[in-house]
Amino acid sequence: MSPIDKLTQLFEKFPGIGPRQARRFVQYLLVANPAIRRELAEQIQALGANTSQCKKCYRWFTKENKGVECNICANSSRDKNLLFVVEKDVDIDNVERSGYKGLYFVLGGIIPLAAAEPAEHVRLRELLKRVETENPTEVILGLSATTEGDHTRELLQEKLKNIGAKISSLGRGLSTGSELEYADPDTIGQALANRS
Amino acid sequence: MSPIDKLTQLFEKFPGIGPRQARRFVQYLLVANPAIRRELAEQIQALGANTSQCKKCYRWFTKENKGVECNICANSSRDKNLLFVVEKDVDIDNVERSGYKGLYFVLGGIIPLAAAEPAEHVRLRELLKRVETENPTEVILGLSATTEGDHTRELLQEKLKNIGAKISSLGRGLSTGSELEYADPDTIGQALANRS
Amino acid sequence: MSPIDKLTQLFEKFPGIGPRQARRFVQYLLVANPAIRRELAEQIQALGANTSQCKKCYRWFTKENKGVECNICANSSRDKNLLFVVEKDVDIDNVERSGYKGLYFVLGGIIPLAAAEPAEHVRLRELLKRVETENPTEVILGLSATTEGDHTRELLQEKLKNIGAKISSLGRGLSTGSELEYADPDTIGQALANRS
Amino acid sequence: MSPIDKLTQLFEKFPGIGPRQARRFVQYLLVANPAIRRELAEQIQALGANTSQCKKCYRWFTKENKGVECNICANSSRDKNLLFVVEKDVDIDNVERSGYKGLYFVLGGIIPLAAAEPAEHVRLRELLKRVETENPTEVILGLSATTEGDHTRELLQEKLKNIGAKISSLGRGLSTGSELEYADPDTIGQALANRS
Repeated sequence: MSPIDKLTQLFEKFPGIGPRQARRFVQYLLVANPAIRRELAEQIQALGANTSQCKKCYRWFTKENKGVECNICANSSRDKNLLFVVEKDVDIDNVERSGYKGLYFVLGGIIPLAAAEPAEHVRLRELLKRVETENPTEVILGLSATTEGDHTRELLQEKLKNIGAKISSLGRGLSTGSELEYADPDTIGQALANRS
Repeated sequence: MSPIDKLTQLFEKFPGIGPRQARRFVQYLLVANPAIRRELAEQIQALGANTSQCKKCYRWFTKENKGVECNICANSSRDKNLLFVVEKDVDIDNVERSGYKGLYFVLGGIIPLAAAEPAEHVRLRELLKRVETENPTEVILGLSATTEGDHTRELLQEKLKNIGAKISSLGRGLSTGSELEYADPDTIGQALANRS
Repeated sequence: MSPIDKLTQLFEKFPGIGPRQARRFVQYLLVANPAIRRELAEQIQALGANTSQCKKCYRWFTKENKGVECNICANSSRDKNLLFVVEKDVDIDNVERSGYKGLYFVLGGIIPLAAAEPAEHVRLRELLKRVETENPTEVILGLSATTEGDHTRELLQEKLKNIGAKISSLGRGLSTGSELEYADPDTIGQALANRS
Repeated sequence: MSPIDKLTQLFEKFPGIGPRQARRFVQYLLVANPAIRRELAEQIQALGANTSQCKKCYRWFTKENKGVECNICANSSRDKNLLFVVEKDVDIDNVERSGYKGLYFVLGGIIPLAAAEPAEHVRLRELLKRVETENPTEVILGLSATTEGDHTRELLQEKLKNIGAKISSLGRGLSTGSELEYADPDTIGQALANRS
């Protein structure tokens, strides 16, 4: 297979990219300055050499400090009593913007409804070990408000129930900007149940 | 002006309808069976003759029971301790689908941020009178999760504070089906604040 | 059934309108000024009383001139040598904006692929009679560039072939504003075949 | 800057990619198998080493045949009498799917309306030389149906007028699948002018 076709195939595996856009990417690179292609190739390989997965929260970070912990886990001013469990790395960017000041743990996915062995799908053992070692006051389960997210939350609540920490879940209800007229009945039901 | 142009203008005032769709409506009526046009005209006029605004909750209803109350207000099995305040009639359809079993009050709008006299924009006096007369245990403020909705809620909380009823607001947070990755920071902040 | 539900049903039959928007229309009318409801009802009925279908081109028009022909057919400065056959009334608005100065004929639909009797679906006999009576130099078949449009065009070409007039069809190719990269192969094929 | 941020910046320059999707690409690569990252980097660099720009039509192709011409230019069964001028490489994929069997020339862009020196924006000299050398019977100008495309076409027509070849342009009109009701007046005007 030609590099053009092989590269098209590789770009088609990128999240949200179909065959047409993959071809446009290859076209962009074909007519681009060789220096841009070289830098792109180098940076992609540098990802492996210069980044590392945090030994505590399992997110990927740049090894600028030669440490084994990411800049959030290594930051002594973060609130070590709070541990926010997220599904994936990008969720952390979003939670940071909300002003949260505690620590994180990246579960690495969500548990499918039919999963026989949950620990094969997410970092269940690693989460238990992290909670036992660090003893946070509260573990916040920051999972998606979907059926699989609910399933994962229930399973984690069960696994974590004998650990000293309080286990909490994100509030459900009307999201910012939404109107009652367009809300679905389940969201209204949750907003009613969580009224205050 | 011709009936075609006049009718196009009238349809353009319908919610969400632009000039092109207004013209298509007129076209649809032009080629429609005269019986359909006649029935439509009759039913539009019947709206005035056969419907009436509920004297208690201010929603519009069909005068089938010759009463002055709508079928929800007149239903003795509804929970009279709960009064759900909504902005407009259609919100009630949506809340009903969530399984709510109390009563309603239609505010008739939302209070603009710059409003000098709130009672000109919503049924403030009527709400106060309803609460004083019926003495519900709890008044649920079911307003939009928008800046104007928040403004209206704060103003209603202030006006209702000396009445015996508990004043509650709908829960804020992740709406059903949403994922952390796509939630806005304010919604995540609310979901964090309302975690449980 | 209540006028609210009946009217909702009637609005659901409007082109492009679903149940939710139909309810919003009824809501709009319920809270609207009675004068608006009255005018809307009157204008809808006036459509029948004050409009009429042109005896020559079959489009609907307002009977301001007490004639039996629409303002285009009655306009002596239009080019009587050209007869533009369209599927429906609204197409005429669009063709007028392109600067066309001839006459029209509204076919009243399109012929389904499986139609046993074409004349049941469109005004075939009326078109033949119009062409025989008025003897235009050219009949322009302005049908949709779809499979059914092509089928209808072929059938009309067959039916009109022994009449003296030249039978032409609208040009096919790149539409204004389109780019080669996003054009479908069939459009490119047509644009190639019709290059000049 | 970290490889994560640098790579995010590089992906933001890809066609149609914003900051959020660029971050998701980096995230995808971070958690991907190192073998995938390695192959992607290698293929991106192979683009430079293993592809080459055709000396005749200027499109990029894979150097499998060790020649200096792409597989279309080198294919002796293509019709050498036809030369299809396109703006960019990807246009060729689309024209091929329409069944065209002649040759191509990639202009490398479009001429901006205000361009003082057209040859700085597109391969004007190279096109003239190609036409002079190969003497095709017909040059087909396959430019976008936009204002800049029209401007480029007029300029090329002027530059090519003294060469023996016939200069043609793609047909304009209704694109496949379009309906008269939704066509813009200019497209209808073109479809009328190009009726046949």
